[in-house]
Amino acid sequence: MINQKMRELGARRSVIRELFEYGKKRKAEIGAENVYDFSLGNPSVPAPDSVNENLVKLIKEESSILLHGYTSAQGDAGVRAAIADYINKTQGENVTADCLYMTVGAAAALTISLTALTTPGAEVIVPAPYFPEYKVFIERCGAVIREVMCDSDFQLDISAIEEAINEKTAAIIINSPNNPTGAVFTEENITALSALLKKKEEELGTTIYIIADEPYRELVYDGVKVPYLTKYYDNTIVCYSYSKSLSLPGERIGYVLVSPRCLDFVSVYQAVCGAGRALGFVCAPSLLQKLLPLCLGEVSDVSIYDRNRKLLIDTFTKYGLETVKPDGAFYLFIKSPSGDATEFCERAKKHEILIVPSDDFGAPGYARLSYCVKTEEIERALPAFRALAESYK
Amino acid sequence: MINQKMRELGARRSVIRELFEYGKKRKAEIGAENVYDFSLGNPSVPAPDSVNENLVKLIKEESSILLHGYTSAQGDAGVRAAIADYINKTQGENVTADCLYMTVGAAAALTISLTALTTPGAEVIVPAPYFPEYKVFIERCGAVIREVMCDSDFQLDISAIEEAINEKTAAIIINSPNNPTGAVFTEENITALSALLKKKEEELGTTIYIIADEPYRELVYDGVKVPYLTKYYDNTIVCYSYSKSLSLPGERIGYVLVSPRCLDFVSVYQAVCGAGRALGFVCAPSLLQKLLPLCLGEVSDVSIYDRNRKLLIDTFTKYGLETVKPDGAFYLFIKSPSGDATEFCERAKKHEILIVPSDDFGAPGYARLSYCVKTEEIERALPAFRALAESYK
Repeated sequence: MINQKMRELGARRSVIRELFEYGKKRKAEIGAENVYDFSLGNPSVPAPDSVNENLVKLIKEESSILLHGYTSAQGDAGVRAAIADYINKTQGENVTADCLYMTVGAAAALTISLTALTTPGAEVIVPAPYFPEYKVFIERCGAVIREVMCDSDFQLDISAIEEAINEKTAAIIINSPNNPTGAVFTEENITALSALLKKKEEELGTTIYIIADEPYRELVYDGVKVPYLTKYYDNTIVCYSYSKSLSLPGERIGYVLVSPRCLDFVSVYQAVCGAGRALGFVCAPSLLQKLLPLCLGEVSDVSIYDRNRKLLIDTFTKYGLETVKPDGAFYLFIKSPSGDATEFCERAKKHEILIVPSDDFGAPGYARLSYCVKTEEIERALPAFRALAESYK
Repeated sequence: MINQKMRELGARRSVIRELFEYGKKRKAEIGAENVYDFSLGNPSVPAPDSVNENLVKLIKEESSILLHGYTSAQGDAGVRAAIADYINKTQGENVTADCLYMTVGAAAALTISLTALTTPGAEVIVPAPYFPEYKVFIERCGAVIREVMCDSDFQLDISAIEEAINEKTAAIIINSPNNPTGAVFTEENITALSALLKKKEEELGTTIYIIADEPYRELVYDGVKVPYLTKYYDNTIVCYSYSKSLSLPGERIGYVLVSPRCLDFVSVYQAVCGAGRALGFVCAPSLLQKLLPLCLGEVSDVSIYDRNRKLLIDTFTKYGLETVKPDGAFYLFIKSPSGDATEFCERAKKHEILIVPSDDFGAPGYARLSYCVKTEEIERALPAFRALAESYK
């Protein structure tokens, strides 16, 4: 009588999680310092000092009943107003508190948005490679995932997306900076996507939403600009989380922003509120909500990730390993010298290196390396990578 | 193209929320001190001191990366072990960390359990009166709610439940202490329910789960005992939250406990994990999880609620208003002198009293008064209640 789909989701570990468990076992066998684990995207940079200082300040100074009490379901009005102001200031937008719905992190923002924007049988386009949980979230709604491979530079392939759109297309998920490639979709690329979606909406007489999944927005390098999607396309929902920017992944705080220029904005925002309610999200954690106005604009020290990124690209180039240069996030996509992702990652394992095959992200032929680790850990792993690279020569 | 069911859920405020909004407006018109608002179940007693002390201690002493990092999806292993120990010590149970799945409060525990235990078309029995969101949570799963009225003492009506059970029955939600009546189902009542469910499982060849929704477990009066349902019935899932016991409703921390004696325990626990994953719960808020082992057994000062309860019952009896004496929670069910719940609550409004008609809880003829307020607020309202009672004479 139990739900077998849910049992399977709970029983079947993701490849990333399998690798992580293998790593734990292997570390126990040969010592943690001899296993080079680049499997997980868990930030290694601590939260900015102001995060913990302000948490203590709130706990000591605020009324316990107010601080830990229910906020309204969509989140504290003052918190939402402060975030709206910040978005307006930094992105030149014109949103209000009533465009925002606070969530328990980006995963909740995505499940709420997908539940609000789809009905069973609807299709959601996902440019590949992509974060594997998208498939779980989409299918739980009774909707259908349509994977569309990116082009060879890991930018959106506009004509392939055009082919995938039909009258059932409800949304497209845009994840930039991207997990697993680190790619940032350029302004030109986003402008082309926007033009395509508008054309298709007119042709089909439907509405197609962009769901912008942006937990890595602040983690960019060399001054790269990440286009703010509401500025390019009206039917946009932004899913944001402070997990990476404030290094608080376990605290689960983020938001859904419904663009004020969405067609039938009120209904879309109501559907977001209704989906949050139906999925069991009463209000996002209150203490963490109230922290946000005190930390807007703060970002964890990205220079450490940047140093890791440069070290890896430079060294791998010397070793003859081909990589996709990431403009953001903390993932490096490495091309399998054999062309086979699983073969590459299995061979890496023999050198005690843990990296994730790209097939799990809906793309063949690469491995994802998470470089949100201490630089020393990368330095320690370099001889193993050199041996891995040489094994292909 | 958006999901209209979700839009309706977001657009249609609950009666409780409508009343709360009316109260806000009315307070602005005639002054907050002249409106007697007993509509919401927001605890008025602050969290025990140890909660805020331990939060500060954790923030100051723990590594920021570990404290705010991802825990495993089912929750930190050490936290779950500590909670399992506490349950075993206080309830004479024999559960382990691996029976527990940490959640973002009781609402999430319920949506996760219902998603795990039902398939579309399954039926879930809900003794009435009941917390109205149960209907939302059940219907979002594609399952069907079967309301079964309690008996005249607001205990479970075993023969009515028997009539409602059929081969589609997946679960029954037991909420004790009860919202909105404050009733605690007696050991005799629970034993009879358990015997009925076992008999029906055999007859029908199906499995019927008890989902025990227990956020009010610690809020009981006069030493009343709340039977721990896993001790009476093997196929039991407990949904718990620290919202009321630690006065932390906004922080959203609780758990699902799958009884280790559940038929096919491993599959049920996996389905819970899978449901959590599919609904977008990555891990429960990390800081709050880590607080729990430091505060197990702590309870907010219930004596204030008990004082309110006694004052209300004694005074209302004098006024000729009939009440259901609550053994737990912080709600008082008042019988409408006219027999009509809405008429009673509308007439109360004319006396500036805000109480919720019982129809919204699936039962006719009563009003729910939330007495989780300051005692002075009750004392201030008594003349208005007297006038209300006298208006029926």
